[in-house]
Amino acid sequence: MSTTAEQKELQKAIRGGEFLIRETNASEVFIPEEWSEEQKMIQQTCRDFLEQEIYPKLDEIDSMKNPELMPSLLDKAGELGLLGTSVPEKYEGFGMNFNTSMLVAEVFGAGHSFAVAISAHTGIGTLPILYYGNEEQKSKYLPKLATGEWKAAYCLTEPDSGSDANSGKTKATLTEDGKHYVINGQKMWITNGGFADLFIVFAKIEDDKNLSAFIVEKTFGGITMNEEEHKMGIKGSSTRQIFFNDCKVPVENLLSERENGFKIAVNILNIGRIKLGVAAIGACKEVTSTAVNYANERKQFGQSISSFGAIKHKIAEMATRTYASESAHYRAGQNIDDAYDSLIASGMDEAQAKLKSVEEFAIECAILKVHGSEVLDYVVDEGVQIYGGMGYSAEGPMDRAYRDARINRIFEGTNEINRMLSIDMLLKRAMKGQLDLMSPAMAVQQELMSIPDFGAQEDDGLFAKEKKALKNLKKAGLMVAGAAVQKFMQKLGDEQEILMNLADMLIEGYVAESALLRTEKLAQQKGEDAVSIQLDMSRIFLYNAIEKAAAAGRQAIYAFAEGDEQRMMLMGLKRFTKVEPYNLKEARRRVADYIIEKNSYPF
Amino acid sequence: MSTTAEQKELQKAIRGGEFLIRETNASEVFIPEEWSEEQKMIQQTCRDFLEQEIYPKLDEIDSMKNPELMPSLLDKAGELGLLGTSVPEKYEGFGMNFNTSMLVAEVFGAGHSFAVAISAHTGIGTLPILYYGNEEQKSKYLPKLATGEWKAAYCLTEPDSGSDANSGKTKATLTEDGKHYVINGQKMWITNGGFADLFIVFAKIEDDKNLSAFIVEKTFGGITMNEEEHKMGIKGSSTRQIFFNDCKVPVENLLSERENGFKIAVNILNIGRIKLGVAAIGACKEVTSTAVNYANERKQFGQSISSFGAIKHKIAEMATRTYASESAHYRAGQNIDDAYDSLIASGMDEAQAKLKSVEEFAIECAILKVHGSEVLDYVVDEGVQIYGGMGYSAEGPMDRAYRDARINRIFEGTNEINRMLSIDMLLKRAMKGQLDLMSPAMAVQQELMSIPDFGAQEDDGLFAKEKKALKNLKKAGLMVAGAAVQKFMQKLGDEQEILMNLADMLIEGYVAESALLRTEKLAQQKGEDAVSIQLDMSRIFLYNAIEKAAAAGRQAIYAFAEGDEQRMMLMGLKRFTKVEPYNLKEARRRVADYIIEKNSYPF
Repeated sequence: MSTTAEQKELQKAIRGGEFLIRETNASEVFIPEEWSEEQKMIQQTCRDFLEQEIYPKLDEIDSMKNPELMPSLLDKAGELGLLGTSVPEKYEGFGMNFNTSMLVAEVFGAGHSFAVAISAHTGIGTLPILYYGNEEQKSKYLPKLATGEWKAAYCLTEPDSGSDANSGKTKATLTEDGKHYVINGQKMWITNGGFADLFIVFAKIEDDKNLSAFIVEKTFGGITMNEEEHKMGIKGSSTRQIFFNDCKVPVENLLSERENGFKIAVNILNIGRIKLGVAAIGACKEVTSTAVNYANERKQFGQSISSFGAIKHKIAEMATRTYASESAHYRAGQNIDDAYDSLIASGMDEAQAKLKSVEEFAIECAILKVHGSEVLDYVVDEGVQIYGGMGYSAEGPMDRAYRDARINRIFEGTNEINRMLSIDMLLKRAMKGQLDLMSPAMAVQQELMSIPDFGAQEDDGLFAKEKKALKNLKKAGLMVAGAAVQKFMQKLGDEQEILMNLADMLIEGYVAESALLRTEKLAQQKGEDAVSIQLDMSRIFLYNAIEKAAAAGRQAIYAFAEGDEQRMMLMGLKRFTKVEPYNLKEARRRVADYIIEKNSYPF
Repeated sequence: MSTTAEQKELQKAIRGGEFLIRETNASEVFIPEEWSEEQKMIQQTCRDFLEQEIYPKLDEIDSMKNPELMPSLLDKAGELGLLGTSVPEKYEGFGMNFNTSMLVAEVFGAGHSFAVAISAHTGIGTLPILYYGNEEQKSKYLPKLATGEWKAAYCLTEPDSGSDANSGKTKATLTEDGKHYVINGQKMWITNGGFADLFIVFAKIEDDKNLSAFIVEKTFGGITMNEEEHKMGIKGSSTRQIFFNDCKVPVENLLSERENGFKIAVNILNIGRIKLGVAAIGACKEVTSTAVNYANERKQFGQSISSFGAIKHKIAEMATRTYASESAHYRAGQNIDDAYDSLIASGMDEAQAKLKSVEEFAIECAILKVHGSEVLDYVVDEGVQIYGGMGYSAEGPMDRAYRDARINRIFEGTNEINRMLSIDMLLKRAMKGQLDLMSPAMAVQQELMSIPDFGAQEDDGLFAKEKKALKNLKKAGLMVAGAAVQKFMQKLGDEQEILMNLADMLIEGYVAESALLRTEKLAQQKGEDAVSIQLDMSRIFLYNAIEKAAAAGRQAIYAFAEGDEQRMMLMGLKRFTKVEPYNLKEARRRVADYIIEKNSYPF
């Protein structure tokens, strides 16, 4: 099928990054309240698995005393089919759609070290074969991975090559008989390394400029490893440094094409990012529930500490950010599923369509990795604080949650790299003409120079004010980004601080809009009164988002504009980030009171 | 001596909390660049001690395998006189002034678990006797503590009584012969508990409403303890749950008077707070140096990662916040020393004067506990992020720094409690007439209703703009606080969220002013050109402070004002928190480049 036909099919669906220039209707988004009965059953199965198999063994898992424990837990998950959710049925998986696999990732996200092991196995371990393998490779390996007979790991990072993944030094040399590649090199931070049977290994063939990817079985030989790494958290997740010494890999185990490895790595990481984000949300829910429960139990000054305003503030913010970020994750997940359906309808094969549909939303994936992991960091930090002294005790639940969470801002691309990537991808799409940022950016500039239309008819429907605020927030982002691009052109990449500012505007806008759309759809379904707490949360989040975006925008403008241009842009920013006074304190108290009464995260 | 005479003497010195309503001259503040040769020698001795005795043993200390290790390290510190810095010479100490003891605390603050052990011993362990003991008690115990022959611990917290310290259930009953108190109860999170020879124990005598304090020797008997607590960090710091079972304490070991225990606890915690704050600053400097060094060494994309804007941003913010917070700590420390000198001049005895001088600056102590610990949390978080994967490894230095830092926002009163306390104390002083907040608050209200004087002569001296911004920042604080008090009167305590907002305004203003005053004094001494980096840092900090204060002020206003009052206050807030556009990005790059070149924290 031609690229034009693909483009045409995709046009029916929402395009990645398009949220910035397009008003989305509530009816278009998927919301977690719409899980089907089947999806809820899967969710429950995962929850039960955590409750029964993982939570009673958290200390044992983290102790790493029994190296068989983690693989045996993966075996059990495999028996329940939980390792094959993304794998098609013909390879002994369940062939679920993307959003369902997100739901599985979310629930398991509360599983501490186990969450990392299962997500590495089913994600970066399995997906390269699923998406890039040929039929032989898929038939040979996927059933083993989907059932858990084999465990997988992903070997990309090297001691001197982290964020700069393509600079790896691991080499693959073709044997004289042309039948094998001989791999030599050193890989680092390899999750599941200690027990994996199969490794996806990135290496450069001969003097190639770009990486290639290989499916390496442990039994191929030449693989040695260091002891388990000692880490701040996720202590039960096997993490090894792995050495490949003349490891002989049959040529048929080259994955995809030569020098296609970096692209594979990037695309697989795209999926990993949004799943990492949603796993963080799963952890947020668990931690919030635990903290609320403790705040209700713990008494000081003769009352439950949950009755204090300072604690209510925390509970409300924990829940609000979780709710908003969750909304964005499943909105994007559904977009990916819709794009997949369109591509399949256009005749694309399944693996290709899976890949393309995620690639399409790579911007959202980067945004969500950053947002999910940062919400989790906030949530665990407040969780510790609510627990007070017990928050710092290794006997309480918050210590582990706090330490485990911290990896998420580092792996699958640091949040700094992902922030920059999100803007970089956006601008590249604009330059390629895939996303028309120019027209709306120009329109904003036009608007800036015109007199504000104070007399305009006010829409007084539900969310009318909030929608206007969001529209303006996007205008603010377009204005600042547009001006920055004009100013620096190709050199914008050197202005990382400005890229960070732009990313913050993008992220806040996307998530705030997602929360609002979810609540709007809920209100349409259940009536406004039934969702008053969600309404509060959406407004709290939006308010904070605008404040953050305005602060980021100001700093960006100061950094590149001067004189009249600066004055005009600052005026525009002020206009576009104006918020109506809003009693956040009372809104937070309403949210907190609701959650305190439920004694757990209830959304 | 009469209270009036004391008040009069104190009037010569700066009063606690007065910074809010008084313009301080740069000449009045002490800056760390003014340490004497002797103080620098002490500083060097402490640094050498860390380098030689502590840093090579960090893993061993944290392993807790050798229970003799920590007390033996304290012994060594004692041999060098480092345990008696605050103890008068007649009790075998060095009798240093307050700011010098702060300097010692700062350097040791980079000592991880050892920092906690030495600060608990010399602080909350020793000071209750120094400040509240009678001559017999002081002669008997202080020499032992100053030399390290005995180690001390402080037993206040109980399982059900943390922030609500006065609610403790531990009881002391007088024996029939009137010679002993028999103590029964359970204490928790007792630092140095495992090896202490002496415990300051808080308990209620009979049915008293308030706590009393006792000096309890380990050999008195009836003391048992649980195993070492396992904690997130400061793993080498002994932390025990301690049980007092019919522990017989001679009546002469009652400290101060019956029911004076809560006051002792509060006053000792005041000192503990500012020292905790400055210890955090010591850790900030160490972590910043380590991170900068790593950023210079670590290469990605063919260059040192310190060359990237995103990393420069972090380095500059780490250093800027450290510099600002340090400025505030030693400014307050000197104020305490000055107040002490005034009180001694008025004829007060030494112990009483020590106490009163710190009590006078209890507001600043609370502010600095919050600020120091939060700057450290920021610094270690960015330290982890700069280190990337290695930041999460237990083999790298950031894991320990990150985990160890987290306790500081919890102990010595959570930061939430300290925020509320700072405002509470401020308002109490105003109500007692010790601090005239009313007149300046009224003046601000007057100013609000008048037309802004745009034609006023602009002062174009160095810092003129910044000073005006600071003055306005204080006005903003006074305006919001004044209105909140008027609105809620005695019920303001129920509005914890608003208290938090007010505290943020207070904290930001105090620290920003301190940084500016330090830089101004430096500029006066060395010329403006020699301190351009400090100037950048002061401006960066001030900009951020105003943004934070404005955000906090807005939320407070939304929370309690409506209609015209709200509009007027929001307008006032806008006027008082207006900032001139300032290229923060370039300023941060200048700061970062300077530090990167020095390859360590250089101020």
